Amino acid sequence: MTDLPREFALIARYFRPLAGPAGLALADDAAILPPIAGREWVVSVDAMIEGVHFLPDDPPALVARKLLRVNLSDLAAMAARPFGYLLTLAAPRATPDQWFARFAAGLAEDQAHFGLALLGGDTTATPGPIALSLTIFGEVATGQALRRTGAMPGDDVWVSGTIGDAALGLLARRGEQPDPDGALTARYLLPEPRLGLPLAGLARAGMDISDGLVQDLGHLCRASGIGAEIAAPALPLSPAVRRAGAAFLPLCLTGGDDYELLLAVPPARASALQAAAAAAGIKITRIGQFRADPARVVVRDGDGAEIPLAQTGWSHF
Amino acid sequence: MTDLPREFALIARYFRPLAGPAGLALADDAAILPPIAGREWVVSVDAMIEGVHFLPDDPPALVARKLLRVNLSDLAAMAARPFGYLLTLAAPRATPDQWFARFAAGLAEDQAHFGLALLGGDTTATPGPIALSLTIFGEVATGQALRRTGAMPGDDVWVSGTIGDAALGLLARRGEQPDPDGALTARYLLPEPRLGLPLAGLARAGMDISDGLVQDLGHLCRASGIGAEIAAPALPLSPAVRRAGAAFLPLCLTGGDDYELLLAVPPARASALQAAAAAAGIKITRIGQFRADPARVVVRDGDGAEIPLAQTGWSHF
Repeated sequence: MTDLPREFALIARYFRPLAGPAGLALADDAAILPPIAGREWVVSVDAMIEGVHFLPDDPPALVARKLLRVNLSDLAAMAARPFGYLLTLAAPRATPDQWFARFAAGLAEDQAHFGLALLGGDTTATPGPIALSLTIFGEVATGQALRRTGAMPGDDVWVSGTIGDAALGLLARRGEQPDPDGALTARYLLPEPRLGLPLAGLARAGMDISDGLVQDLGHLCRASGIGAEIAAPALPLSPAVRRAGAAFLPLCLTGGDDYELLLAVPPARASALQAAAAAAGIKITRIGQFRADPARVVVRDGDGAEIPLAQTGWSHF
Repeated sequence: MTDLPREFALIARYFRPLAGPAGLALADDAAILPPIAGREWVVSVDAMIEGVHFLPDDPPALVARKLLRVNLSDLAAMAARPFGYLLTLAAPRATPDQWFARFAAGLAEDQAHFGLALLGGDTTATPGPIALSLTIFGEVATGQALRRTGAMPGDDVWVSGTIGDAALGLLARRGEQPDPDGALTARYLLPEPRLGLPLAGLARAGMDISDGLVQDLGHLCRASGIGAEIAAPALPLSPAVRRAGAAFLPLCLTGGDDYELLLAVPPARASALQAAAAAAGIKITRIGQFRADPARVVVRDGDGAEIPLAQTGWSHF
């Protein structure tokens, strides 16, 4: 392969070993998704840009794993099972081989962990920051994908895990917030996609929280044509976030990068949901209820007073 | 929608109108590909970076259409039928709404032309050049996708259309080459994916030519474990390329952006291939033959002498 131009040498050395059978050894123009009886394909794409979604000195292996995981979180949000991914990677010509080696090592580690294979991609140079885009493929029983539509007034609002760690982790990364044990930074650098929850027949609607709890709950409400009310004291907060203090509550409600699940579940199914979550090893918490008032999200404090929020979440523009 | 952050307003205004049923109105975390009896999904991704794959003053509508078309060319290379696409778009915050409007208008025009729908995507800011990535979805009868493997010694080498126009078009774009009628520039800005050729049972292997004829033929040979010999005088050249003169022959053999098909076809199927191409309105030309010598591509002039090439094609690194 030494006579190949660098683009193809990089692909052969670092990316071909990651390819699964459907990727045709990355030697074709496209990948072929085999039909699976009774299942349908769920596909999503997310981009990550150096200086926007990750910092230039973030370890390349962690950047790769975060890129996979933010996409896996979209599969979790649809209750789909991971299958594989396509990758586009634009990097400056001066990027050393070592960066690609470490990036590919991160992909390899999480591929093994989540049962994924590389299906294909495109590698190119850019005069600007590193620009990554990953298309994820999952599969779900036909008709069983979880959607954002379908939440009903009276359904409970549930979230997985804890909220706000990643937003405080970004502050810690910038040196603006103490993080003695690194727990907050770790949550920012490496989200945990909440895969494996058997949500069919339990949740009526769902999504993942990537741009801030209140804003994303607003998206779910808008898609379902209803509203919601959540109780701030019910929010699941990690010990590290509790230590940071109550002043950070608005940040927890609106900060990005949680990658937790947000679910609409009829009250009668609460115990079945809790049993399923316990079996999957995923913590879940009821934080409020959907309401008939359309497209309005209200956050209340312990006294029932509405908490005003200057902004509801994160926009990239 | 005026209360939405700009990211979501842009999506609602310019991209939601492009969404098809499988895109779930872009209101979900992922799209769902319906199973189609007897067919399988073919998927591919290509990136385009401002300053690398297009120039900052290229019309946004043409950039969008080229992005779709280079991906559609990958579907044509696998003999697949277009279905839809996912898009990631990273642009500087200062990018005016008008740019997005024109970009989306280009997508809309080619969606209608090629029977495509937007399935989903991700819009984000970048401090660097505009970075685009498009994942294309097509479908093909199960087991009938054209591959790069399978070409046999003795198969003829066929190409569609004409070769070299886009490489000269890039020179014209830079003012380094005359282009009085704009034909060369048009081919660089707007490739023509060679969809619609019923290649099953005709071609044994194939791909599209995107990084230079000789280099891409080398990829096909490597995948099939054989070599090939092509005759320079047989190359299909447009009137504009012929006018440029014989000095540009090496550029035609190695320049990128042709997006023509490269096919391996047994001699006995030549007339069936020609009939199919005529029915599809696609010009095809026999330019050489595959040989047993592994992974070597030889180009011969009219006297049978080998033409030495300083480089075989385009590498992005």
